[in-house]
Amino acid sequence: MTDTALPPVPDIIRSAYATLVVTDLAEARRFWVDLLGFVVTFEDSSAIYLRGYDELAHHNLILRAGREAAAGPLGFRVRSAADLGRAQAYFGALGCRYERLPAGAVRGLGEVIRVEDPLGFLIDFFDRSDHPERLQQRYDLRRGAEIARFDHFNICVPDVPRAYDYYSGLGFGLSETIEDGQTLYAAWMYRKQTVHDMAFTGGAGPRLHHLGFFAHEAHAVLRICDIIGSLHIEEHIERGPGRHGVSNAFYVYLRDPDGHRLEIYTSDYYTGDPDHPVLRWSVQDPRRRDFWGNAVIPSWYTEASAVLSLDGKLQPVTEIEQQAESAVRVGADGYTAPAGLVE
Amino acid sequence: MTDTALPPVPDIIRSAYATLVVTDLAEARRFWVDLLGFVVTFEDSSAIYLRGYDELAHHNLILRAGREAAAGPLGFRVRSAADLGRAQAYFGALGCRYERLPAGAVRGLGEVIRVEDPLGFLIDFFDRSDHPERLQQRYDLRRGAEIARFDHFNICVPDVPRAYDYYSGLGFGLSETIEDGQTLYAAWMYRKQTVHDMAFTGGAGPRLHHLGFFAHEAHAVLRICDIIGSLHIEEHIERGPGRHGVSNAFYVYLRDPDGHRLEIYTSDYYTGDPDHPVLRWSVQDPRRRDFWGNAVIPSWYTEASAVLSLDGKLQPVTEIEQQAESAVRVGADGYTAPAGLVE
Amino acid sequence: MTDTALPPVPDIIRSAYATLVVTDLAEARRFWVDLLGFVVTFEDSSAIYLRGYDELAHHNLILRAGREAAAGPLGFRVRSAADLGRAQAYFGALGCRYERLPAGAVRGLGEVIRVEDPLGFLIDFFDRSDHPERLQQRYDLRRGAEIARFDHFNICVPDVPRAYDYYSGLGFGLSETIEDGQTLYAAWMYRKQTVHDMAFTGGAGPRLHHLGFFAHEAHAVLRICDIIGSLHIEEHIERGPGRHGVSNAFYVYLRDPDGHRLEIYTSDYYTGDPDHPVLRWSVQDPRRRDFWGNAVIPSWYTEASAVLSLDGKLQPVTEIEQQAESAVRVGADGYTAPAGLVE
Amino acid sequence: MTDTALPPVPDIIRSAYATLVVTDLAEARRFWVDLLGFVVTFEDSSAIYLRGYDELAHHNLILRAGREAAAGPLGFRVRSAADLGRAQAYFGALGCRYERLPAGAVRGLGEVIRVEDPLGFLIDFFDRSDHPERLQQRYDLRRGAEIARFDHFNICVPDVPRAYDYYSGLGFGLSETIEDGQTLYAAWMYRKQTVHDMAFTGGAGPRLHHLGFFAHEAHAVLRICDIIGSLHIEEHIERGPGRHGVSNAFYVYLRDPDGHRLEIYTSDYYTGDPDHPVLRWSVQDPRRRDFWGNAVIPSWYTEASAVLSLDGKLQPVTEIEQQAESAVRVGADGYTAPAGLVE
Repeated sequence: MTDTALPPVPDIIRSAYATLVVTDLAEARRFWVDLLGFVVTFEDSSAIYLRGYDELAHHNLILRAGREAAAGPLGFRVRSAADLGRAQAYFGALGCRYERLPAGAVRGLGEVIRVEDPLGFLIDFFDRSDHPERLQQRYDLRRGAEIARFDHFNICVPDVPRAYDYYSGLGFGLSETIEDGQTLYAAWMYRKQTVHDMAFTGGAGPRLHHLGFFAHEAHAVLRICDIIGSLHIEEHIERGPGRHGVSNAFYVYLRDPDGHRLEIYTSDYYTGDPDHPVLRWSVQDPRRRDFWGNAVIPSWYTEASAVLSLDGKLQPVTEIEQQAESAVRVGADGYTAPAGLVE
Repeated sequence: MTDTALPPVPDIIRSAYATLVVTDLAEARRFWVDLLGFVVTFEDSSAIYLRGYDELAHHNLILRAGREAAAGPLGFRVRSAADLGRAQAYFGALGCRYERLPAGAVRGLGEVIRVEDPLGFLIDFFDRSDHPERLQQRYDLRRGAEIARFDHFNICVPDVPRAYDYYSGLGFGLSETIEDGQTLYAAWMYRKQTVHDMAFTGGAGPRLHHLGFFAHEAHAVLRICDIIGSLHIEEHIERGPGRHGVSNAFYVYLRDPDGHRLEIYTSDYYTGDPDHPVLRWSVQDPRRRDFWGNAVIPSWYTEASAVLSLDGKLQPVTEIEQQAESAVRVGADGYTAPAGLVE
Repeated sequence: MTDTALPPVPDIIRSAYATLVVTDLAEARRFWVDLLGFVVTFEDSSAIYLRGYDELAHHNLILRAGREAAAGPLGFRVRSAADLGRAQAYFGALGCRYERLPAGAVRGLGEVIRVEDPLGFLIDFFDRSDHPERLQQRYDLRRGAEIARFDHFNICVPDVPRAYDYYSGLGFGLSETIEDGQTLYAAWMYRKQTVHDMAFTGGAGPRLHHLGFFAHEAHAVLRICDIIGSLHIEEHIERGPGRHGVSNAFYVYLRDPDGHRLEIYTSDYYTGDPDHPVLRWSVQDPRRRDFWGNAVIPSWYTEASAVLSLDGKLQPVTEIEQQAESAVRVGADGYTAPAGLVE
Repeated sequence: MTDTALPPVPDIIRSAYATLVVTDLAEARRFWVDLLGFVVTFEDSSAIYLRGYDELAHHNLILRAGREAAAGPLGFRVRSAADLGRAQAYFGALGCRYERLPAGAVRGLGEVIRVEDPLGFLIDFFDRSDHPERLQQRYDLRRGAEIARFDHFNICVPDVPRAYDYYSGLGFGLSETIEDGQTLYAAWMYRKQTVHDMAFTGGAGPRLHHLGFFAHEAHAVLRICDIIGSLHIEEHIERGPGRHGVSNAFYVYLRDPDGHRLEIYTSDYYTGDPDHPVLRWSVQDPRRRDFWGNAVIPSWYTEASAVLSLDGKLQPVTEIEQQAESAVRVGADGYTAPAGLVE
């Protein structure tokens, strides 16, 4: 994949949106719009286009009604129309299947190159977006988790080093890892100047582990948890809130009515310097996944969303091909529960 | 205990301080002072007197060096000297052992009536305290968890209804309970105008479950967890942070180097109206202990501090005499872990 | 007023509610309900009964439609029915006009003793209230400033020492003052265990300076300011946000559509100990009114709400009879603007 | 300046550091280190090198002892060594004086191109920096304002359109402006993906208006104000805290012992998309400088730091050559004080 004979890669600006197939659009709307407070840019009977309050592009998330829950295309914004051509040439040279969708085929966007990438994920590349109304300073409208913008994708892959190599080839920088002498268990990679646009969790794949959305302050995370408790739907909270070791972000993981996982993510740090140093976490440090040492919920390691192929079918899943992070013994049980101070 | 022939009870103002016997005073100082940021009112080679930044009495906590970790006297402030006499007469009539300590015997305080109460706990009643320097507005000194003041005791008792009756007799109001048709599993009772000065956790007792200290805002709780993670001593975080169902407070439970448990506790509500209504939680509501449905750590139900008798020995412990809250099935496993949205 | 021949005073529990006459009830509703997020307990075409999310009594505020903006009765809760009798006897002995209103005359309350007090204010004493639905943990409903409960009254009086003497006689404790060797400029007094239920601002009176409402954390104050900015009605923000020197609370002062002033007030401290020490601020300390030294807005010293007499007319106003705090030179200009670091 | 015959501009990554000449280094250290909590990378008897907790380069601020307070070189990081050459050629072609400093001449950095730019400011371009110890997750060390990193420069220039043209030529994007039909009063421009690396305030210049430092949450801003109040040095707080209309950041402006102004700045938003839309504020909108309508302190418009020339002398200052923003009538007095709701 690092073959120098490959055509040049597109200049990717950032992770921009995801598509989730949901089995009950009305129920999904109650979760994403009524509860979490996402802004609706557009909706009809088959799909809802959502964004955060700071977002100045058309959408950060497309909810599309379907028979089976799945993750559809993940969208990357590229710098210019020329980068669409570069994407087409690059993935063509890699032997990947792709489509060129005309402007408007994905609502609100210009032309899209839709690729089934070497890892098995559907990826949309686009360079132009409509600008909806600017709502950053409409505090009167803010509700729920007060989502600002899309932050990152996190995907399950059976072979983390392979995913790392592929995204390195696409020009992504590496901010943090979980590893030991033998194994790369997880990696965080970026194009925009944050910790990540894309992260890899070792596991059966291709599957979507979660979508990360940015909120400005920690109290927004506490507030959405409180709202969820008020409504007695606390089963939507899967893990957290807590502080990540990796990324230093304050987080909570939620599950939507179809089981799709999202993260509300605050804090983060600047990674824009060309020599930005990598932070490497030992897989044996119980703080890597939760800086306070709280145990990772088992489902968080094992469950994830199936993804669609270019022809709209569920991609077959390959079991993990490396040592699983959740099987590494950290303290007593492999889930970061330390032996403890008290007998 | 509700015998009308008993003498009048003392007018208790509030829970005010606790005494902890610690096996290594220097190590305890590192935890309570250097890490948590408690203010030292006085210290010598055998004991340290600590308070929060808002506290205007001499101390909220006495750490006393000893061979075996234990909880010593728990201090209640009473209204006046006459109430010391009332305490003496009342506990005498109950057949409890007690001592009358002269002013200064407990440093910083006036006379103290020290009682071994019917539940087996050592209780100090005092009416006068020295006033140390007011530090409420010394933000330049605040560190750690930015503790404001003592908030409450939580004790393990084998028979919660008996503890409830005893404290009702002492004039405590009831704010919240965990119960079902048959059983009172836990209760929160107050003298000052907050949710509680004293709470009961069903379990082997008499033991001290935890000491609750008040902080003003939730970010102080997050900050002390972050500091603990920074120092890689995350085993001191036992449970949380989270939002309580009962009390609505935002909390974290920590364990000191001897295993004594404390809670950093924010939010709370006013209970001063004479007809303040009781909030009764079903033992089957997974939100009662954590409003977000996060599981209670098993050690939180089973571990607690031994307490001292009036002659300085460890009180023998009686096993729980009622249905244990931790044995009630809530969802799948009795620890509030709901069946969950996702298979 | 300290005449020992007076009958015993009623046992006042706390400041509980205020009545505001507003000239446009629909507009007032937009401000207090739609914008600030107060909870409506009851409303009809002539009045709206509002409370905070933590409040367990019927109301904290009555908005009543009228031709002229004014402050109507200020409500104190007393301990028991016997205290209503004590109020009647006490104010009768003082020669004050009063009425005894039957249960329900003030909606949601039991009997009310309505007094025109020696300072010229209408005061309601009540001992019983309906309990509306408990909304403390309905985070899904919280909006605006997320008001928890009523906190305090602040009144303009021409003679602060006289007001202090009168409220001392009623059994109020003193928490803080602004003074110099000659003059008591302002005082904060309490019955519940907070900094105040009642405070005095020297100025033409009787007038209502402001109503204080409690919110749990500082970010709620920032949020309501942000919402107000979003709606481009920033003229409703009169002063702050800031940190008070007196009380240590984080605050903002708003003006409603009729010019009635309210304070959103967070933090505060416990004052329940019988020997709670008084904090005395020098009138020359620029931090007393704003701990960060920001200047007080002139209107904050001069403007206030007229108050009603027992027969529903506006009380005549007496000019200030003592040195005005705003006329004291602090630094250069009398409004806390320090000489400054920079020439 | 937009002459196409000019050589290509250097690829600027971000604003990275500033140099302040201070008249008493020990006193400056007390302010910047002891009070604000900046991290010391290096210090000797003539200078102190400071950074925020997230910063992974050598410094964000150099304090240098000198006889007269002034702003020295402002540092921009460029992508690579080739960009140093581009800077040299570009400014040479513009007829600007410059020096090429060897690696280490500015401690911790590689080679530096130091330019006296067309606006009269000293600018350092560098491409390499030492990496000091990573302290992002050393919450145990955080103090004061918990500064994360450098955010932006704000400079006073007599001719804002000229400054805008010059920085446009250097490849800066425009995020926000204050303007009316005739006049550009102020502009915010960026290279990194935030609202700005550089902003222009119309006024006598060249002078440094302020340095902006990023903190993660609003409570860090409140805390440093509280600490300053505690120490009774509130004259260091010049303006705020408040919410900016422009940038939407929560801010406070402080003055150091020499009168140099800094801003603690939180929130901000992402500007990395190539078509990021400009937000244009009317100079008549009272919310542009403070979203809550609070008045701008007059000194904030008029005072600023003198800047050094390449030979170390104070640059002569040219009076403002355009309509002054502070002279525009907004409401009654030109400082955003609206006519007000209340007569």
